[in-house]
Amino acid sequence: MTSVETRPVRVALVGSGRMGSFHGETVGRRLPGAQLVAVADPAPGAAERLGAALGVPRAYTDAGEVFADAEVDAVVIAAPARFHAELVVAAAGAGKAVFCEKPMALTLADADRAIDAARASGVVLQVGFNRRFAPDWAAARALLDDGRLGTPRLLRSVTRDPGGFDPSRVPLDTIFNETLIHDFDALRFLNPGAEAVEVYATADALVEPEWRDRGLLDTAVVVVRFDNRATGVAEACFEAAYGYDVRGEVFGSGGMATMGGAGRTGMVFSGASGRLAETVRGDQELLADAYVAELAAFVDAFRAQAPAPVGGEDARAALAIALAAAESVRSGGPVRIEKVGK
Amino acid sequence: MTSVETRPVRVALVGSGRMGSFHGETVGRRLPGAQLVAVADPAPGAAERLGAALGVPRAYTDAGEVFADAEVDAVVIAAPARFHAELVVAAAGAGKAVFCEKPMALTLADADRAIDAARASGVVLQVGFNRRFAPDWAAARALLDDGRLGTPRLLRSVTRDPGGFDPSRVPLDTIFNETLIHDFDALRFLNPGAEAVEVYATADALVEPEWRDRGLLDTAVVVVRFDNRATGVAEACFEAAYGYDVRGEVFGSGGMATMGGAGRTGMVFSGASGRLAETVRGDQELLADAYVAELAAFVDAFRAQAPAPVGGEDARAALAIALAAAESVRSGGPVRIEKVGK
Amino acid sequence: MTSVETRPVRVALVGSGRMGSFHGETVGRRLPGAQLVAVADPAPGAAERLGAALGVPRAYTDAGEVFADAEVDAVVIAAPARFHAELVVAAAGAGKAVFCEKPMALTLADADRAIDAARASGVVLQVGFNRRFAPDWAAARALLDDGRLGTPRLLRSVTRDPGGFDPSRVPLDTIFNETLIHDFDALRFLNPGAEAVEVYATADALVEPEWRDRGLLDTAVVVVRFDNRATGVAEACFEAAYGYDVRGEVFGSGGMATMGGAGRTGMVFSGASGRLAETVRGDQELLADAYVAELAAFVDAFRAQAPAPVGGEDARAALAIALAAAESVRSGGPVRIEKVGK
Amino acid sequence: MTSVETRPVRVALVGSGRMGSFHGETVGRRLPGAQLVAVADPAPGAAERLGAALGVPRAYTDAGEVFADAEVDAVVIAAPARFHAELVVAAAGAGKAVFCEKPMALTLADADRAIDAARASGVVLQVGFNRRFAPDWAAARALLDDGRLGTPRLLRSVTRDPGGFDPSRVPLDTIFNETLIHDFDALRFLNPGAEAVEVYATADALVEPEWRDRGLLDTAVVVVRFDNRATGVAEACFEAAYGYDVRGEVFGSGGMATMGGAGRTGMVFSGASGRLAETVRGDQELLADAYVAELAAFVDAFRAQAPAPVGGEDARAALAIALAAAESVRSGGPVRIEKVGK
Repeated sequence: MTSVETRPVRVALVGSGRMGSFHGETVGRRLPGAQLVAVADPAPGAAERLGAALGVPRAYTDAGEVFADAEVDAVVIAAPARFHAELVVAAAGAGKAVFCEKPMALTLADADRAIDAARASGVVLQVGFNRRFAPDWAAARALLDDGRLGTPRLLRSVTRDPGGFDPSRVPLDTIFNETLIHDFDALRFLNPGAEAVEVYATADALVEPEWRDRGLLDTAVVVVRFDNRATGVAEACFEAAYGYDVRGEVFGSGGMATMGGAGRTGMVFSGASGRLAETVRGDQELLADAYVAELAAFVDAFRAQAPAPVGGEDARAALAIALAAAESVRSGGPVRIEKVGK
Repeated sequence: MTSVETRPVRVALVGSGRMGSFHGETVGRRLPGAQLVAVADPAPGAAERLGAALGVPRAYTDAGEVFADAEVDAVVIAAPARFHAELVVAAAGAGKAVFCEKPMALTLADADRAIDAARASGVVLQVGFNRRFAPDWAAARALLDDGRLGTPRLLRSVTRDPGGFDPSRVPLDTIFNETLIHDFDALRFLNPGAEAVEVYATADALVEPEWRDRGLLDTAVVVVRFDNRATGVAEACFEAAYGYDVRGEVFGSGGMATMGGAGRTGMVFSGASGRLAETVRGDQELLADAYVAELAAFVDAFRAQAPAPVGGEDARAALAIALAAAESVRSGGPVRIEKVGK
Repeated sequence: MTSVETRPVRVALVGSGRMGSFHGETVGRRLPGAQLVAVADPAPGAAERLGAALGVPRAYTDAGEVFADAEVDAVVIAAPARFHAELVVAAAGAGKAVFCEKPMALTLADADRAIDAARASGVVLQVGFNRRFAPDWAAARALLDDGRLGTPRLLRSVTRDPGGFDPSRVPLDTIFNETLIHDFDALRFLNPGAEAVEVYATADALVEPEWRDRGLLDTAVVVVRFDNRATGVAEACFEAAYGYDVRGEVFGSGGMATMGGAGRTGMVFSGASGRLAETVRGDQELLADAYVAELAAFVDAFRAQAPAPVGGEDARAALAIALAAAESVRSGGPVRIEKVGK
Repeated sequence: MTSVETRPVRVALVGSGRMGSFHGETVGRRLPGAQLVAVADPAPGAAERLGAALGVPRAYTDAGEVFADAEVDAVVIAAPARFHAELVVAAAGAGKAVFCEKPMALTLADADRAIDAARASGVVLQVGFNRRFAPDWAAARALLDDGRLGTPRLLRSVTRDPGGFDPSRVPLDTIFNETLIHDFDALRFLNPGAEAVEVYATADALVEPEWRDRGLLDTAVVVVRFDNRATGVAEACFEAAYGYDVRGEVFGSGGMATMGGAGRTGMVFSGASGRLAETVRGDQELLADAYVAELAAFVDAFRAQAPAPVGGEDARAALAIALAAAESVRSGGPVRIEKVGK
């Protein structure tokens, strides 16, 4: 008896870079109920190499081949951001369930196209906002859902990377579209039912000041006002001396939840220089459980043919905040969300 | 040999309310090297009552009598904020060293008058920005001074009161002038040598929404941009379900310092509902050591006839941010500091 | 090319109870490089049920069938403790690599037989002392290995279960043989190269005092003196109101390492009753990563045909402490290790 | 109206060494309601020097002069331990309230003489077990008193000094009589109403091994069994690389309280080497509040003519444990308390 419930979901990977490899390993080795069956990457030999490492037989250079593969139930899109929307549209058009890394799109029009395509095909569409699946964040949301935190008043979400980026390869607005978009989604996740109405942002090149004139923004603070009158602050920096840092805070009428900031392990060394705990250096380490959990949720949604826990509309809403933030930096003043891109 | 160095500094208290009583008790009972010699309060019997409780013989209803009292070396001003500047001018004019609770003034013109009066008389003028004396904050500043934190990039300062305020008695802009002014000073303290250039603020009545129309602001977020390109975020709320909460964070090129958030004691109870630590309910408890330390520093400055560690110019700079924040809320956009009050 | 290095290690499970199911799921679903190929359990239908749940075709009622199965490389023994030694001897005799849950044996003679059998067959023999693989403990050991902790002076290891045990089903000395044996191994792990020379123990029935007369011991403290003059304290209780608690401490000439005590997540809720963090309720949750890591290490040892990181001699040494502790409770005084069982 | 209630309690200090100076400064400068009026020390010039520093006019070389001084209400005894009992007897005989540093006596007979003398004179007798007054410990006791911790099962108390002691000046059994006696009292304080019945101890010279042969004991572990079947473990070491460390733990049927382990401040620095917090280096810093609180409680007891919160019987009970511990080290086995000194 091989029912949909019991045979593994057959997943193909589109993109075999840093995130692609990581998702591939998760699907292939850590995800009960899923099976990695194909890898696609346009770079010569890239799909073959990752496929061989993960024991996956089918390697393609053209994502279209994946979408045409009848033995594929679902795709994980981890290509460069500028291709995301187009790939979602194509995958959905081919009837594949889609998990797309963030950002799902770089324009609201593209986001709408992706959402429409998934809706038209009736396929599951999930976006890679992994923090929703991190234990701290999920626990905070549970406190919101059971009412213990009351009505949110002030929220905070912080992302700091460990640095080492190449300033020549950071596209304009990356800090908003690719980094802070996680924080914008986190703020929305922690303020359930509310939507952003106005955004004020300030950003600068503080890590690499000599790149400022070329438009690099490596450090930013964004204030997001919501329609339930809560205010969120998102901040990011591309370099933290102490490693990878993702934290959050929700302050509501019932109290406060704080998230993140854990050490590499719980071991603390007290020595002549004081009390010392190791910090976390990489996102894949910090959010290891979340990366597995988000894909497990995607597989579950596919099996149940139920809506994904974080979908295309969420991707669009976070993108709208990112676009407003970028516009605010340029204009110097706050930007209303409904006017974004108009 | 009764020299200035060895006899106690004779301190008079102006104002016997909540803060006045507290400062009076500190001077009278916890401050080696100082002696509380007089209390003034215009309310009938108030000075007598506090004086009796503290064993202080001279009680006045008119602050002028304190300033005329030749047996008084220094005054601690803890009257309502709207009288502060005038009292500083009068006390300085009478040659008294002055410790003035924050805010020292409510307008930049008044702040300038107070600064000028102290300068003209050559008296010590200190302002009650107590966080500079709180152990966590002083330790963070030490890390900045020894270079370990590197150049500040992002700063944060948070104040949340335990609530229970009377919305009918909160003057307009109190959240900026009286609460967040501590945070504005903390941001400056943690970004040494830098000055604010632009302020964006958003504020609302979230604790007492029915007072919104009368102009109450009980919750606020303020973004402060500094001339060294660091950005600070100050936030405040008049009601936190868990008590009194003062925290700070400095993120620089060398790492991050976090301050505040300690429990009432270090005892942690692990029980059926989890791991539980008591929170602090009052500012005088949370900042107990800082309240003593700031007055000890004042006494030391008086003895040494040296500048106070936090003086009139600091009060003016924090006030300029507070005024810009209030203006930003009204205008809806960022406000340049040099234009404040112009 | 199907080499030893690339084909999965074929693992069979002996015992399908609470620990067996858990190990089975780890091997079957979370362990790259291993494949669960058979389950054995004498209880009618038990092996079939677990096999079906895990997609494992071969189910046996007799462990001997597993050992005779040529398609099995390695076995995980999770039967009741009293059968462990005999199963190790049989499995090793059949040339299978053996991972045996603790305690490997209940007498030193049985431990010796198991060790001898593995040695004679040249098979890998690993014992389920999972704490060595818990991140905190591994990090503390790394501090010892790199010299930062200096020479150990005082050690501590604590185990507290969440309760709910059935006192009628607790065999005599379970607290030493099955619970504290983890702590005895942890003390040895954290005092590398040293061996226990004397043990003093005190134990009682404090959770279920009415069972005291029948010999139940549910709470114990054990002092272990080592030949390098360090002293360790192990303590255990079968019921903690707050959940499952495993902690450790090493204090050496260079400082102290503390381990354990983490919450369920890093989320902290500050509310009207204080600051609250969830505690962990189960060992399989608390030590989830360690359970995977110990089996991964076993698979690695098998592939490399290298000694297991924690082997039969370690099991014997911890057992010797457990036996001495039980004897100390009966005699009321300290017991020399070399006299155990003599 | 100068009543007993309102005039300051006149306190004399006997002993002007490290602890004496510290207590003198507390009484003279930090204790509302008390006045330091005399200092006695047999060392030539010592009392004068401390008196001058604290502004105290009367300096004696003979403690007898203090006891004869009619203007003295109460004495704080901080002489070397071997003189304590005799001084308590003399002070009580002269009708003075007595605060005596620990240990109050070095033999049970001397402890009895001190207790009897205070009882005969009806004076307040308090012993310097300061941990009862440390906020963490007081909070844990409050949890016991309100029932939340349930019945104690396992207790722990740890003391580690920062080192730097002169092994040639450490009298035999100092680790029990002067250091661990704090921990023995802490165990009793955290197990209210229970008394120790049996003690097992192991101790060694690990910090200064070359002094072992001369009987130095610088590291010790003591197991204390109580008549309510709870077991406590006290441990101490004269040298911790990370500073001064006092911690405690009570585990009862209702949960666990942990005490101690706070950093110097709450500031945490996250830098390239991890997350770092300063540790505390001195007892007078770690227990600063407790040192004030214990003397404030003594003054309150004197005013109320009520029993001290920690009195002669407590000193005797802790001493009995200390003597049993020393005997256990010598005998190698557990020692019954009722047999101590018999």
